[in-house]
Amino acid sequence: MSELAFESRIPIGRASGQLLPLLLRIQESKGFIPQGWIPLIAQTLKMMSFSKELIGTDDIATKREAYYVSKNWGDARFNEQPESDMVMDDIEAMLMVNREQLGFIPEEKGGDVSGKLIVIDEDTETGKELKIDCTKFGSGAYSVPSSVEHLQFETDAEFILAIETAGMYQRLVKHAYWKKAKCILVSLGGVPTRACRRFLRRLSDEKKIPVYGFTDCDPYGIANIYRTLKVGSGNSAHINKYFCVPKAKFLGVTPQDIIDYKLPTHPLKDIDIKRTQDAFKNDPFIKHYPEWQKALKLLITLKKRAEQQALAASGLNFVITHYLPEKLEHPEKFLP
Amino acid sequence: MSELAFESRIPIGRASGQLLPLLLRIQESKGFIPQGWIPLIAQTLKMMSFSKELIGTDDIATKREAYYVSKNWGDARFNEQPESDMVMDDIEAMLMVNREQLGFIPEEKGGDVSGKLIVIDEDTETGKELKIDCTKFGSGAYSVPSSVEHLQFETDAEFILAIETAGMYQRLVKHAYWKKAKCILVSLGGVPTRACRRFLRRLSDEKKIPVYGFTDCDPYGIANIYRTLKVGSGNSAHINKYFCVPKAKFLGVTPQDIIDYKLPTHPLKDIDIKRTQDAFKNDPFIKHYPEWQKALKLLITLKKRAEQQALAASGLNFVITHYLPEKLEHPEKFLP
Repeated sequence: MSELAFESRIPIGRASGQLLPLLLRIQESKGFIPQGWIPLIAQTLKMMSFSKELIGTDDIATKREAYYVSKNWGDARFNEQPESDMVMDDIEAMLMVNREQLGFIPEEKGGDVSGKLIVIDEDTETGKELKIDCTKFGSGAYSVPSSVEHLQFETDAEFILAIETAGMYQRLVKHAYWKKAKCILVSLGGVPTRACRRFLRRLSDEKKIPVYGFTDCDPYGIANIYRTLKVGSGNSAHINKYFCVPKAKFLGVTPQDIIDYKLPTHPLKDIDIKRTQDAFKNDPFIKHYPEWQKALKLLITLKKRAEQQALAASGLNFVITHYLPEKLEHPEKFLP
Repeated sequence: MSELAFESRIPIGRASGQLLPLLLRIQESKGFIPQGWIPLIAQTLKMMSFSKELIGTDDIATKREAYYVSKNWGDARFNEQPESDMVMDDIEAMLMVNREQLGFIPEEKGGDVSGKLIVIDEDTETGKELKIDCTKFGSGAYSVPSSVEHLQFETDAEFILAIETAGMYQRLVKHAYWKKAKCILVSLGGVPTRACRRFLRRLSDEKKIPVYGFTDCDPYGIANIYRTLKVGSGNSAHINKYFCVPKAKFLGVTPQDIIDYKLPTHPLKDIDIKRTQDAFKNDPFIKHYPEWQKALKLLITLKKRAEQQALAASGLNFVITHYLPEKLEHPEKFLP
């Protein structure tokens, strides 16, 4: 049992969920729990008890707050936040629930939403049901909360457009594109947050709505933003599967669009070319899909990138009158 | 006339608003417009005509889109976005309106809002009035649009709390703090965007509601986030005065709070100490207020910083039950 070699230091893997089983095995083989483990066990129990308290009082805490709360745990307090994050990740993995269900919410907020969706939430104080109609916000939007597990949805939308930039989102909202296209518009604001991804996932699973990614055509838009939307973030692999949208498809902007729509481009930087080549060789996501390999090959050959906004060169609303309708006629051609 | 020395290159200052008056003076003294000025004049006229078109069709464009649209202007096209931004800034300064009023919107979005506020907007397609009640978003929020000039407000809020972190904002929303305190909660999400500042400014001016900043106690929270909220961003000084909240006050977290509330702290990094000392010596904002000089002096003496979340060390909801009520009893003690 190689784990035993680590007994004097904190041996817990990043989010392994192995703490309790490991302790049981150590106890079994040694007949006692070595001294070095005691603080970690105390911290884990304190954190679990804190989570129980959060759930019991229907409260929430960010990872940062949990770290500060631990300052009152005497010897079990954490010295740095990565320690408390690790324990929290481990509890999450051990209990097979996501940390939002344990009362822990992320620091950052989700995306902005407009269109054919009613979100059912409750008044945080009275518990009275609230129906939030995302067609009624004019130029503004509904902003997704940090934890979305308690939300319910009513919708007859035909698809969700998950948009990289706030500028493009605002254009589509301004022209009530969601009315014409019977859809839901979501502004990702760069790489989508956990809450935003979970929100989209629940709509994808529970309401069977297709989710279409619409990003810049560059390595960041494809291999960071869209990839994180589709398969999640590498940091939290164990629980990752709930925080991504496996059924998402990529509408654009594709490398082929640069040619087909004669888009104004910028040269790809050397580092971007290198990153794309790396993804091409090593990224399991890209390697899994021949379609993406072909697309990235074209991107490297072109040595160019194009932004969503580049569609404006053919007219500000070309994206609404031509680009999106033409694309949406053939969802079967979307990249996986 | 020293400006004439520059005649062969583009002499326009960043957002000087001096293009037309300068041209008139050159024309007067020379009897003709030198060749080197022609592209800039063409670009300025094209950009003004584009703005007229936006206003005429009730459309919008981001700075980035405007740059791409120029690709169809033949010889008047811009090669890089900073050129088109500069022309846009100059038109803005020349006409003494803000660029949102010219149809140009920022790329990034504003803040999140909950609480005692009704925003009056209109359906972007039908023009029908929409009343958006910010008490009806449950755990979610109303997200401020990129341009806020057309919004109207109804509110009986006693103050606005402008909060640095999404985590603290979510806590106050979760506990419907806006109900207890009769206020509006705004999540700045770091340094507030133009739209968010303008939104707060209009509430401050038109509804005479006090705006209180609530940030981390560190140079970034004070000299970036709060300072930008109060006096705007240095980049756009000419029009700056509309995109800041001069009547804002600083509720906390103050350096004195670190002592009074025995907050857990982190050491100030050397670069932070240097930055604070620089601000102390050179920043007109800090130099203008003896209260801020005293506060920053204390921060440098303590060599410590504290986060909003550090209040959680005294109990997760200490901020609601003690900190904010105690502070709000003495708004006259808030930092300017």
